[in-house]
Amino acid sequence: MPRPSAAPSERTRVKRMHERGAYDRARIDAILDAQPLAHIGYVLNGAPFVTPTLQWREGDHVYWHGSAASRMIETCIEADVCVTVTLMDGLVLARSAYNHSVNYRSVMLLGRARLISDPAEKETRLKNFVEGMFPGRWDRLRAMTPYEAKATTVLAIEINEASAKIRSGPPGDPDEDLMQDVWAGVLPLEVRTLPPIPDARGSVATPPEYLTRFKIG
Amino acid sequence: MPRPSAAPSERTRVKRMHERGAYDRARIDAILDAQPLAHIGYVLNGAPFVTPTLQWREGDHVYWHGSAASRMIETCIEADVCVTVTLMDGLVLARSAYNHSVNYRSVMLLGRARLISDPAEKETRLKNFVEGMFPGRWDRLRAMTPYEAKATTVLAIEINEASAKIRSGPPGDPDEDLMQDVWAGVLPLEVRTLPPIPDARGSVATPPEYLTRFKIG
Repeated sequence: MPRPSAAPSERTRVKRMHERGAYDRARIDAILDAQPLAHIGYVLNGAPFVTPTLQWREGDHVYWHGSAASRMIETCIEADVCVTVTLMDGLVLARSAYNHSVNYRSVMLLGRARLISDPAEKETRLKNFVEGMFPGRWDRLRAMTPYEAKATTVLAIEINEASAKIRSGPPGDPDEDLMQDVWAGVLPLEVRTLPPIPDARGSVATPPEYLTRFKIG
Repeated sequence: MPRPSAAPSERTRVKRMHERGAYDRARIDAILDAQPLAHIGYVLNGAPFVTPTLQWREGDHVYWHGSAASRMIETCIEADVCVTVTLMDGLVLARSAYNHSVNYRSVMLLGRARLISDPAEKETRLKNFVEGMFPGRWDRLRAMTPYEAKATTVLAIEINEASAKIRSGPPGDPDEDLMQDVWAGVLPLEVRTLPPIPDARGSVATPPEYLTRFKIG
């Protein structure tokens, strides 16, 4: 079955450097799935706020969660939000300051944040969040209490007004700059995991395989 | 001389988990200086937008730049913005889903974005941006042309309504959860640089020392 497209709206169409814009769902989903860190934009008393949090994707929706008492969560419920997810892949060093750049992959999702109000759905979403990062972990955790479920809010945004923006490859200097006597190229960046640190208060000794497999990017 | 404080306003005071909040300039500056990637929040037609870009700090100001034609830049000039800078230091795996967390350092700056309109100041800021990341590079670059200077906008925000939020350390499980038969601890994350990739169209052969020294985090 072909994936639904996230055709660009006037708001999401990449205005500048439009050759960097992409609207196909495969590309958008790949970026969302590669980077759990999201920056959530919302408006409070007319002013913008940007809060970092983790996101996860299930099909055509992106979810995030937080304390029911958090300002970000309170403000986002049924409000316009912007969910931006960014991977910084490298610094691009050109022969002129102007042509310096960054290699990156980012997605911007616009729309209303919907509250997941059904308790059973909320628990399913949270389980999928944990299982998506650490397969097999959920069933070994102490079960969620009614208090914890009530204190946690899960929000969703549909992926239907979305754009990806991607830059990769070497610097784009014009030919006449190539003789400049300076190092030019890309300094690649990646997120890596370091060896897991077991809790000093006691832990199953062997780190589970999902810790070794976990990857951002 | 003591550093000015960035005393919390009602808007920047960390509401939840207030033990994670910090308002001293040393801590705020350290985070800003450790992570060039920023997410800029702005409001357009009443809706929030979040755009990733690089930031740099000089004293009591944070700067960012972009094409004079970009939507983000156009909208931010003399408008309320939120500049958020985040480092994700690790994933915190607890014995319950509820106590899972992220180790992170983030800064949120609120205020009006000021346009750097003086051409000489603009060039100085851009030079400091390049030199801050790659000391000694600016003078080896092909000089900026009047067209390039005109096409580039530099914005500033004063660090006077700011907060840092930091979490570090092991999971915060209550004692009664410690017997749970599951791995618990921290999976540390870091950004690392990979070997520089010289441009195939020709480059000074030896990567300059600043590439080796460059560090995020």
